[in-house]
Amino acid sequence: MADLLSSCHTGRPLHSITELYRPRNAWTLRLKSAADLTCKFPLKALISRRSRPPTRQRTVYATAAPVSREIDDQAASGSKQFPVESSSKSKKVMVIGGDGYCGWATALHLSSKGYEVAIVDNLVRRLFDHQLGLSSLTPISSIHDRIRRWKSLTGKSIDLFIGDVCDFEFLAEAFISYEPNSVVHFGEQRSAPYSMIDRSRAVFTQHNNVIGTLNVLFAIKEFAEECHLVKLGTMGEYGTPNIDIEEGYITITHNGRTDTLPYPKQASSFYHLSKVHDSNNIAFTCKAWGIRATDLNQGVVYGVRTDETEMHDELCNRFDYDGVFGTALNRFCVQAAVGHPLTVYGKGGQTRGYLDIRDTVQCVELAIANPAKPGEFRVFNQFTEQFSVNDLASLVTKAGAKLGLEVQALSVPNPRVEAEEHYYNAKHTKLMELGLQPHLLSDSLLDSLLNFAVRFRDRVDTAQIMPSVSWKKIGVKPRTVAA
Amino acid sequence: MADLLSSCHTGRPLHSITELYRPRNAWTLRLKSAADLTCKFPLKALISRRSRPPTRQRTVYATAAPVSREIDDQAASGSKQFPVESSSKSKKVMVIGGDGYCGWATALHLSSKGYEVAIVDNLVRRLFDHQLGLSSLTPISSIHDRIRRWKSLTGKSIDLFIGDVCDFEFLAEAFISYEPNSVVHFGEQRSAPYSMIDRSRAVFTQHNNVIGTLNVLFAIKEFAEECHLVKLGTMGEYGTPNIDIEEGYITITHNGRTDTLPYPKQASSFYHLSKVHDSNNIAFTCKAWGIRATDLNQGVVYGVRTDETEMHDELCNRFDYDGVFGTALNRFCVQAAVGHPLTVYGKGGQTRGYLDIRDTVQCVELAIANPAKPGEFRVFNQFTEQFSVNDLASLVTKAGAKLGLEVQALSVPNPRVEAEEHYYNAKHTKLMELGLQPHLLSDSLLDSLLNFAVRFRDRVDTAQIMPSVSWKKIGVKPRTVAA
Repeated sequence: MADLLSSCHTGRPLHSITELYRPRNAWTLRLKSAADLTCKFPLKALISRRSRPPTRQRTVYATAAPVSREIDDQAASGSKQFPVESSSKSKKVMVIGGDGYCGWATALHLSSKGYEVAIVDNLVRRLFDHQLGLSSLTPISSIHDRIRRWKSLTGKSIDLFIGDVCDFEFLAEAFISYEPNSVVHFGEQRSAPYSMIDRSRAVFTQHNNVIGTLNVLFAIKEFAEECHLVKLGTMGEYGTPNIDIEEGYITITHNGRTDTLPYPKQASSFYHLSKVHDSNNIAFTCKAWGIRATDLNQGVVYGVRTDETEMHDELCNRFDYDGVFGTALNRFCVQAAVGHPLTVYGKGGQTRGYLDIRDTVQCVELAIANPAKPGEFRVFNQFTEQFSVNDLASLVTKAGAKLGLEVQALSVPNPRVEAEEHYYNAKHTKLMELGLQPHLLSDSLLDSLLNFAVRFRDRVDTAQIMPSVSWKKIGVKPRTVAA
Repeated sequence: MADLLSSCHTGRPLHSITELYRPRNAWTLRLKSAADLTCKFPLKALISRRSRPPTRQRTVYATAAPVSREIDDQAASGSKQFPVESSSKSKKVMVIGGDGYCGWATALHLSSKGYEVAIVDNLVRRLFDHQLGLSSLTPISSIHDRIRRWKSLTGKSIDLFIGDVCDFEFLAEAFISYEPNSVVHFGEQRSAPYSMIDRSRAVFTQHNNVIGTLNVLFAIKEFAEECHLVKLGTMGEYGTPNIDIEEGYITITHNGRTDTLPYPKQASSFYHLSKVHDSNNIAFTCKAWGIRATDLNQGVVYGVRTDETEMHDELCNRFDYDGVFGTALNRFCVQAAVGHPLTVYGKGGQTRGYLDIRDTVQCVELAIANPAKPGEFRVFNQFTEQFSVNDLASLVTKAGAKLGLEVQALSVPNPRVEAEEHYYNAKHTKLMELGLQPHLLSDSLLDSLLNFAVRFRDRVDTAQIMPSVSWKKIGVKPRTVAA
């Protein structure tokens, strides 16, 4: 181990360096070979920026393991290879939450488009599945295997920082080490039902999301002030007002005076509220510190295939259909595939913006390629089409018939508190103006959704499908088995 | 001790009861006499609501000490006296943050008006002073001495729960035990500069305020669903829009449709943002759970005297003039008293709403006496007059001349990021409609402000006056000596 560590690019043997330390919440990795260890520690930066009492001895732990089969082979033959700094300084993207549903697809897409990519993730989304007894419809590989497979297929490396962005010590290290030009921040608890399970999950969601984003903002200010923050928000921040929804701002004339102000928000879960809090915090730092940020108010994402994830089974993305993490359309397709009635919540008139995951990755790429100006807080509504829940049920029923599936829709008591019949007209032109080429649902429903659901229907656990979380019944008693 | 504990109203000796437990963050109190111990533990409620493994032995610690000199005397003679439950169930008010500037004045005022009052406070405001090297211009007594003195002067008891509302175990106990009809929530970190000292204080402020308020909302839902929440917000949530500021909501006509929506917020510090987050969270729980809440968007408070605090030196309120906790007008009066130039930040055109602390206590009383309906999220703008910073400097200069003080104003670089010349017209009619009788600044400036500043000018530490916190320079490195 000492031999290996001494190969890091500083030339100093790590086991004698006391300036370094172990991120508090870093996960310990099992490494398959010695060459899996890549030095991610910003030795010079740390030494110059921080003075530490000499009595504090710290131990080095690796947080990253971007390796390919080729490197494994080289390790077996005794040679060692470490990544070298790229000269394309402007194309380094840190994807926080890069092991999740949108994050993984985005990380691969950006890598394929020539960006240098680092994934920052504490993998807690996988822990939620374990704790709630859920699992993805599609089998997914470990993040380590995913990254190795990507390298072996494309020759492209993705760096990996395992840790929690709520732990500033860890996050600072990742920033100092990686020096990103753009940060895409998916790293939040992203389920409304999860945030409504019980008090402790509500508190976790708001703490995790708000403090994590504050830390990212401070890291940008301190370590990468030119870095462009691309933050995933949600269309759910707006709620369902009785007027048109604009992209982030609205011009109001009132008592003879006019101003353009942040669009009023009416979020309807502790999760959605956490995104509103984030948006407000980010807007302030753009104004006060000159941070450049794009808030992507994303609609409901559907689909599993992207050009990159379909290259190999080990790159396959997750696909959630359960009552906690499953989004409406994904869940309907799984229900159709296994002969379960489509669970329409209440009257089914709830209308939202939707987009194909292939458009999620395209939108993020467009935002990165066309960054906000310093001090600018830019808001894009990221969806391509509007549907009501009843619209979706009808579309899935028709598409199912083409595959010989007999699909029925069933109204179940709405576990949420929301309007079930309402006006909804949300603008979404800014990403189109940047060049977004939408994949429309009519084209995707069969190939990217229903066929997947049918292919994996033996893996469906029907017990996960029904809603198990009630907006009104949430209590303070911890739900030890929530699903 | 065992004898004393057995006197609690359950009749069971506490030292044998294992269902109870010590709040994790409860502060240990030094008790002056055995009779200081009053049983605050909701034995029956705890036993019925919670089932605990029999192996977990828990120890009882008292959290409250509402006693008077008379009770002390009785204890000395061997008799014991414990509070009995009031029959005026509708008048029990829990004042969270009741040891602070607004909270203490409010607690006394409500007690004097016939409400049963309990103070919930972790006393951390006193800790901030210790840590930052600050102190109140006026000498203030301990919360224990304050409450004892109030009892001895008026015969009225104020209950005391020492603990942190971010600790739900503690808060649940306080709710179950006290069964409040109204909760007035002042219990937040309330300084914008404090929240801008460094990253850790920014994170502390948002965590403390947002999670504390979430816990209060859950406690109301679970333990006191009829309880009316009176939450202290701030006029700073609105920022300085170029249109009139309404009370919480604004009716917008846009593209031919009309809706009444939450007024857009533009907060300008991590503290102000935390109040925006709170407002959004509370609004959601009113809608989803039927919580009844009043959000008091308070202006800048000035003055130290209320009818109750002036009854005795031991009841005297705190008066902050430092660069972190001191509000503009209080600071100017202290500066005038000691011959320090008035520190006008920047151009001095910053205009805000102001109110006398005697109106703070009146407004809270009005809100409690006229509660919101179940499910209603009501917003009052709580101030009486608007002034620019230059207006204040001019008023203090003139008033100082009457006392023979030579006052000068000095423009100092603005440590904040804010507009220094702007339109400002904020509505504040709802509390007037409920019967608020304002104390105007012209009447208060001499008797409640300048005379106090002159009386205590020997206690002024001029090193505390200048701004020490910069909105732009805030960094990630902890400021170990911040003031």
